[in-house]
Amino acid sequence: MTFRLKILGSNSAAPAFNRNQTAQVLQVNSSYFLIDCGEGTQLRMSKARVKINKISHIFISHLHGDHYFGLIGLISTMHLFGRKHDLDIFCPSPLEEIINLQLKHSETILNFKINYTFIDQMEDDFLLENRYLTVEKFPLNHRIYCSGFLFREKPKPIRINKSKLPENFSVANLGKLKKGEDIFDEEEKLIYKNADLTLPPRHSRSYAYCSDTKYDENIIPVIKGVDLLYHEATFTKDMEKRADNTYHSTAEQAGMIAKKAETKKLLIGHYSVRYRELQPLLEEARSVFPESYLAIEGNFVDVSE
Amino acid sequence: MTFRLKILGSNSAAPAFNRNQTAQVLQVNSSYFLIDCGEGTQLRMSKARVKINKISHIFISHLHGDHYFGLIGLISTMHLFGRKHDLDIFCPSPLEEIINLQLKHSETILNFKINYTFIDQMEDDFLLENRYLTVEKFPLNHRIYCSGFLFREKPKPIRINKSKLPENFSVANLGKLKKGEDIFDEEEKLIYKNADLTLPPRHSRSYAYCSDTKYDENIIPVIKGVDLLYHEATFTKDMEKRADNTYHSTAEQAGMIAKKAETKKLLIGHYSVRYRELQPLLEEARSVFPESYLAIEGNFVDVSE
Repeated sequence: MTFRLKILGSNSAAPAFNRNQTAQVLQVNSSYFLIDCGEGTQLRMSKARVKINKISHIFISHLHGDHYFGLIGLISTMHLFGRKHDLDIFCPSPLEEIINLQLKHSETILNFKINYTFIDQMEDDFLLENRYLTVEKFPLNHRIYCSGFLFREKPKPIRINKSKLPENFSVANLGKLKKGEDIFDEEEKLIYKNADLTLPPRHSRSYAYCSDTKYDENIIPVIKGVDLLYHEATFTKDMEKRADNTYHSTAEQAGMIAKKAETKKLLIGHYSVRYRELQPLLEEARSVFPESYLAIEGNFVDVSE
Repeated sequence: MTFRLKILGSNSAAPAFNRNQTAQVLQVNSSYFLIDCGEGTQLRMSKARVKINKISHIFISHLHGDHYFGLIGLISTMHLFGRKHDLDIFCPSPLEEIINLQLKHSETILNFKINYTFIDQMEDDFLLENRYLTVEKFPLNHRIYCSGFLFREKPKPIRINKSKLPENFSVANLGKLKKGEDIFDEEEKLIYKNADLTLPPRHSRSYAYCSDTKYDENIIPVIKGVDLLYHEATFTKDMEKRADNTYHSTAEQAGMIAKKAETKKLLIGHYSVRYRELQPLLEEARSVFPESYLAIEGNFVDVSE
């Protein structure tokens, strides 16, 4: 089963050095989630061979333009390409007015419905549940309202070990195995121990997305132990004061969060336009947390079960 | 002196086949005018080596997204790159609210002033005059309010023919020549005929931009005899009915307008996403008006004096 993060853009503020602003697609089995949507995201989806009308849910972390200016264009193209099915957008509440104002003045009536969930007006952090996973939000520490997103696969079923299964094993008993039960005969005598005929459930994967934030250890309990963490790393550590003033992080700080949260892998991104070369940012993160990697447009990361 | 049109995008509606939505830069001497601003225009300006803060004036023809969705990103990047000088935007009036709403929710206070001129609220068609040229608008026939733009160099001065100028010719008499006067001596006797010492003024160049419009002969008197006409050609002639219904033109119709207006050169663009190959559109325009060319992203056209 697929759990794949595609990077569509990983620069901050403005495009530079062939890097575009933030956008990612998380594919979990046949579901496609778009996370942030910088200008030109629709073009980069096309290059990454992500069909735009496969996107079911969009998550916008905050209303700085480098995280959403591509949304109105994407919605317009979805309309042009004949989308009929609903689109769910999780975003700060003013975004609905911004989208609707632009649709109004182009006299566009969409062929599909947008269901908005205003993440800045929710008391609860639970956003979404489908057959395979849940999505929650958590607060980030930025200049304006900003939210992280946590995608977690649900616990998976016990697997039947077919090579150990006796011939003529009954369907009723198979059901019991799947529930984790041992198998008894009519006289309540143990015939098979569950563990002898099954394999443990596959690992439930998780991804935490921290778009724009200053160094803040409050997120550590929330993202504890995730398989993959994306954490912004706008600056190198010589710019730590500027990072703090602008509510951003250094690559070293991203590494520290990953280490303290005991995540398996760290992706850094949201690079400042001042950096042509990204290797110093990577080395800085790795000096704290060796399993650090650069988010590079066009690349993807598969999280294994 | 430069009179150069750079094509930054020439597709309609959505990006397709490496073609982006409408945007152009007209350079007249040291002035840079941006005409329409589809999504991702800032990126294509960078590729075309147009410095974004050299843009002094922006002209937005209408509020369909493929003509302006890149504007808020461009303004944001101008701000990020330290622009201090005013930016003049000529546009339909709702655009100010659209821009301001997005700036408000990102809590951005621009370091420069935007002077809006609302072209939909003007009685007069005159937009702008500088040392070298004038800009006027004219109505196009589209589904929503839409304006064309006409850039005209002002009449140029008589040129002194230095090879014919006698030695010790006085500065006072030079001034008279420049005014087109003949030179007389103190007894009012003709010494030099103006035409013998001067060359005629250089040609004043002109460019007419017709972004989105159905075939409409009403524009012919306005654009009569321009050096360069850009006229949309969304469809081939087999789609004439669809062109008419959607208030667009066919390539043949663009050619007919160019021919009837006796323009020197026609650029077609605003290609529908249905066309991978543009040659049929070009051939269709050329069958009516041989001096037809395709507007291709990254290319430019120099208009000679």
